[in-house]
Amino acid sequence: MKRGFGSDNHSGVDSEVLDAIVNVNKEHALAYGDDEYCQEAEMLIRIAFGAGNAGVYFVFNGTGANVLNIDAMCRSHEAVVCAETAHINVDECGAPQRIVGCRLLTVDTPDGKLTPDLVKTRLHGFGFEHHSQPKAISISQPTELGTLYTLDEIKALARLAHDYGMYLHIDGARLANAAVALGCSFGAMTTECGVDCVSFGGTKNGLLMGESAVILNPDLNKELKYRRKQMGQLYSKMRFVAAQFMAYLERGVWKRNAEHSNRMAGKLYAAVKDLKGVKVMYKVEANSVFVQLPHEVWTALQKEYFFYDWDESQNVVRWMCSFDTTEADIEAFVGSLRRLLA
Amino acid sequence: MKRGFGSDNHSGVDSEVLDAIVNVNKEHALAYGDDEYCQEAEMLIRIAFGAGNAGVYFVFNGTGANVLNIDAMCRSHEAVVCAETAHINVDECGAPQRIVGCRLLTVDTPDGKLTPDLVKTRLHGFGFEHHSQPKAISISQPTELGTLYTLDEIKALARLAHDYGMYLHIDGARLANAAVALGCSFGAMTTECGVDCVSFGGTKNGLLMGESAVILNPDLNKELKYRRKQMGQLYSKMRFVAAQFMAYLERGVWKRNAEHSNRMAGKLYAAVKDLKGVKVMYKVEANSVFVQLPHEVWTALQKEYFFYDWDESQNVVRWMCSFDTTEADIEAFVGSLRRLLA
Amino acid sequence: MKRGFGSDNHSGVDSEVLDAIVNVNKEHALAYGDDEYCQEAEMLIRIAFGAGNAGVYFVFNGTGANVLNIDAMCRSHEAVVCAETAHINVDECGAPQRIVGCRLLTVDTPDGKLTPDLVKTRLHGFGFEHHSQPKAISISQPTELGTLYTLDEIKALARLAHDYGMYLHIDGARLANAAVALGCSFGAMTTECGVDCVSFGGTKNGLLMGESAVILNPDLNKELKYRRKQMGQLYSKMRFVAAQFMAYLERGVWKRNAEHSNRMAGKLYAAVKDLKGVKVMYKVEANSVFVQLPHEVWTALQKEYFFYDWDESQNVVRWMCSFDTTEADIEAFVGSLRRLLA
Amino acid sequence: MKRGFGSDNHSGVDSEVLDAIVNVNKEHALAYGDDEYCQEAEMLIRIAFGAGNAGVYFVFNGTGANVLNIDAMCRSHEAVVCAETAHINVDECGAPQRIVGCRLLTVDTPDGKLTPDLVKTRLHGFGFEHHSQPKAISISQPTELGTLYTLDEIKALARLAHDYGMYLHIDGARLANAAVALGCSFGAMTTECGVDCVSFGGTKNGLLMGESAVILNPDLNKELKYRRKQMGQLYSKMRFVAAQFMAYLERGVWKRNAEHSNRMAGKLYAAVKDLKGVKVMYKVEANSVFVQLPHEVWTALQKEYFFYDWDESQNVVRWMCSFDTTEADIEAFVGSLRRLLA
Repeated sequence: MKRGFGSDNHSGVDSEVLDAIVNVNKEHALAYGDDEYCQEAEMLIRIAFGAGNAGVYFVFNGTGANVLNIDAMCRSHEAVVCAETAHINVDECGAPQRIVGCRLLTVDTPDGKLTPDLVKTRLHGFGFEHHSQPKAISISQPTELGTLYTLDEIKALARLAHDYGMYLHIDGARLANAAVALGCSFGAMTTECGVDCVSFGGTKNGLLMGESAVILNPDLNKELKYRRKQMGQLYSKMRFVAAQFMAYLERGVWKRNAEHSNRMAGKLYAAVKDLKGVKVMYKVEANSVFVQLPHEVWTALQKEYFFYDWDESQNVVRWMCSFDTTEADIEAFVGSLRRLLA
Repeated sequence: MKRGFGSDNHSGVDSEVLDAIVNVNKEHALAYGDDEYCQEAEMLIRIAFGAGNAGVYFVFNGTGANVLNIDAMCRSHEAVVCAETAHINVDECGAPQRIVGCRLLTVDTPDGKLTPDLVKTRLHGFGFEHHSQPKAISISQPTELGTLYTLDEIKALARLAHDYGMYLHIDGARLANAAVALGCSFGAMTTECGVDCVSFGGTKNGLLMGESAVILNPDLNKELKYRRKQMGQLYSKMRFVAAQFMAYLERGVWKRNAEHSNRMAGKLYAAVKDLKGVKVMYKVEANSVFVQLPHEVWTALQKEYFFYDWDESQNVVRWMCSFDTTEADIEAFVGSLRRLLA
Repeated sequence: MKRGFGSDNHSGVDSEVLDAIVNVNKEHALAYGDDEYCQEAEMLIRIAFGAGNAGVYFVFNGTGANVLNIDAMCRSHEAVVCAETAHINVDECGAPQRIVGCRLLTVDTPDGKLTPDLVKTRLHGFGFEHHSQPKAISISQPTELGTLYTLDEIKALARLAHDYGMYLHIDGARLANAAVALGCSFGAMTTECGVDCVSFGGTKNGLLMGESAVILNPDLNKELKYRRKQMGQLYSKMRFVAAQFMAYLERGVWKRNAEHSNRMAGKLYAAVKDLKGVKVMYKVEANSVFVQLPHEVWTALQKEYFFYDWDESQNVVRWMCSFDTTEADIEAFVGSLRRLLA
Repeated sequence: MKRGFGSDNHSGVDSEVLDAIVNVNKEHALAYGDDEYCQEAEMLIRIAFGAGNAGVYFVFNGTGANVLNIDAMCRSHEAVVCAETAHINVDECGAPQRIVGCRLLTVDTPDGKLTPDLVKTRLHGFGFEHHSQPKAISISQPTELGTLYTLDEIKALARLAHDYGMYLHIDGARLANAAVALGCSFGAMTTECGVDCVSFGGTKNGLLMGESAVILNPDLNKELKYRRKQMGQLYSKMRFVAAQFMAYLERGVWKRNAEHSNRMAGKLYAAVKDLKGVKVMYKVEANSVFVQLPHEVWTALQKEYFFYDWDESQNVVRWMCSFDTTEADIEAFVGSLRRLLA
């Protein structure tokens, strides 16, 4: 497949991560997470999140992490407030509804970001049994539109949640990109802000596969090992996920890769923002660039490169940079774009 | 962890399989199974099963494969007939009930194997809305007790299922062990016997991770891509599962490893069957040996080696051989056992 | 409780309906719908809907009818397009999500009514497994805001649904009010418009309890008797629901009562529409009147009468007329309102 | 339909109960249980169960009461131990599996009754995430086979449950028949025995419809109003169920009717027990008689009377007596039986 800007899932595996897999491939280890590698990887995650007694649950993918977190926060008669654009709303084929059985209360946002005022529009009907009871707020950091919450914005949402007896969840499929953009640790962006639980992703930033549900609020850290198993998210040879997270956190893979993909997005943005016919839709704060293109340019460019339409009705498309995006990739891509715009 | 006979999940990854992963780790590939590796791996599975238009759905683990297959066969008001000892009944923490919502109609068996007569004890209440409607039979090949169905036995169960408008599913977490034991192809044991769908496993026989639901009956091959996604079993960087199955099937890893683990189980059996105090519980036909031990020997041996109790009340334990079990492993283990028995 | 305009559920049972219950209370009858009364009531519903082979499933309440209909139309990976204000979205405490597991794709509407253009905004992502697949449109007739679809509007939505391989459902908790307002039969509003299934209510129009799911599209009329039972909606002494529907349809209770409550709503509307400080929010087409009141009037009036807030943030409230609403009720209520407004 | 012994659901409504319905059919009342009748009926139930702060949740039918109770006790990864013959296992079309998502761990019993020893055979795997966690014991009183638990037997099961951190549920669809047979109050059989929650039925003993989930253990009395609504079991005009329970408890309808149907069963038993060819299968302790008949007699008798086969393979059938069974009914029925046996 031609290299391009379709998805950070199109890249393969970071070589240090792959080495880590190879290196733990020796002898026997207990299955299902009871081995030493998993103990160590869990501890590294607790340290990274500054949360010594966090529950860490490795799962296979982002759907697994998100659904397990929602399951930890909500029963079926309860509801999660999220942006209309949230991955849990738009891109899970209804997994939360099927697996947890709860409602998502969606809010239209200008840039993918919830605010306390936006959330409050869905906070009513408490105690009225005809209405699903709002029990959680879920945000994506960075958002699906490549924008970022500041630490203060996260804190404000956590406060709001807790004022209403609710929880705050972060879908952090690309949490590393947010951390390097904000120049802070994972803990500063989550535990220190009062976040209750996190989907901590790695696959989009160089892992082979593997995410984790990180449960910061001990009240939520109950029965989740059974829930994970029942959802089909318990990996037998779990050391091979643990090894990846060890490389990710101990060897700084997360930072190196996220810095790179963010920087590449910055370069891509710089290269297109002043092109006539191209309108950049949202602030470029992480590793994605959303642009509006003339219809025929969009169509023609997609014949050369695979990328996702974001809003067909508006001719808006998404370009993702990845840990292995090169400057040459950008030059070639922007070259094609310039040619087509001309 | 000390090498032993706890589980075929305790082994790592076959080196040819790991090489295959490393070898596809280059450049970009479409995500979620739309890449060329997946197309090729799916085709290899179709060939192996002698079923040119089978649906092949890669999933993360055995729970995923089993639940997706059950979901393909049954709606929530229907039921699956299976052995009381079936993995789907005993070892999935109720995943079929939660995810599909259906009932399992269990049958006590002497050796883990269903027979048409045993199945028929659960085939009643058709058309009566107060009763879950029997819609599928699920067998494990080899069974959870290490025994095997002959091809004729599978055919008889398929005929019975179809006579009642039902389907036959094989939980093939260790299907390769059955194939080498019976000296037949995957297709001969499934498609040619009239089986409707299969959980085709690889993790217990040398893969890093990855199983597949193989849908042989085209009537069942509907909407499953959505169902897989909604269950959280869709892998983004799916080429890394495909690569494993390519090595597994093209390079004969499945056969080499299964032959080895079966042979090791045969040796282990031979070494213990005449020991005084040891009673072998079931025919040793694949890669596991179930024995009854004196209580104090069992306890003492478990201090040296990790292995699972099978039936505590009867002092029955399970010993699994794996693709990397060595003759030295067996000698050391049997040495300990002999010492403790003495 | 003081008589008022809180809900058409606050009234008791129409006396002809109660007589019908008393009259079938003799001797024995088969349970669970296999009796002669049920056969007859089902036939009367088929006649009323002009659909000789419709499936008729009596259930206990509106939630039961709606969820059974959604279950007939959608599997969990599919979705129902409905108005944001739809009862299935707002007032079932998430029953569709829990019981069917599907998504609802909601649309903001000015007056509770979907249009083809509004629906189309949610019709995308077909074939893309990350997205819940739109499979049904659900409308309420009359809407939760007391407005009505014309027959042409229903036809247009049915055509749109069928063009996309989707189904059209009517939540007809107050279908009789719509029929008398439009001056048409139940069949003209449903079967003749191409509607696929209907929640046909009676409780809000004088029944003791009992609704039915009327399945007009034979493709949907499958396995529903099992589904109804599994949802807990199968009534043992079902003749006592059948008897009510017999009175409802044969003796014209539906028409008499709905005409009355609509007429009362017209009178209430006429009495308040020109009052200073009162703003009527939607066309009054059935038996409800929605008004915006000055905050202090709203609060004071609620001290005298029970009625529901509709939109607290806008001081909008709902007043329902019922089959037993009297002109004296209206005079007293409007008298209080006038006094408080002064 | 010819009067017979098919089911206590074949009878209509007790006349005092019907009068009570008619008597509350006046003026308006708050919907969904907020009216005074419901308050009063709930209080009467609390008094009857000797449990001043019990949660009382009216539902439509036995499926609703059982599933709500199971939902109160178990999450989906947990399990309920029950008899193989339990109504929740055999006659709900898998409602617990679909709605709660949990497993039922069934036990074969000689007479429909669990014992601590039988229950213990299913109490293992605690803490092991691959196994559904046993969390509740459910018994039927009287059992589906017409047998009774003594108070001491119930206490022993409650103790066992609590020793394991589990709950004890009684499916009391015919609880009145048990109470009169044991000569004790509802409270003596439940609250005083340590029972945690009860499905308290009335429909089979003369009500029009209506059961209740009675939550005796305050730890379980949480969020159930939302759960009931979400399951479709919240009745709008709930005063009409409350009125029935008021007549049932205040006017002694429960006792009068249950005594009668038990007595009739005793007469039926006496009339058939010594007939040649008839074998009574279980102790006749409540209102049912199970007999084994010669195959041709069974077939011939069913041509004259409707009754259910219980175990076709053994020619066992069930005869139910009801509150309106007469001695003439018994004479006629036994007359037919004698004739056919001859």
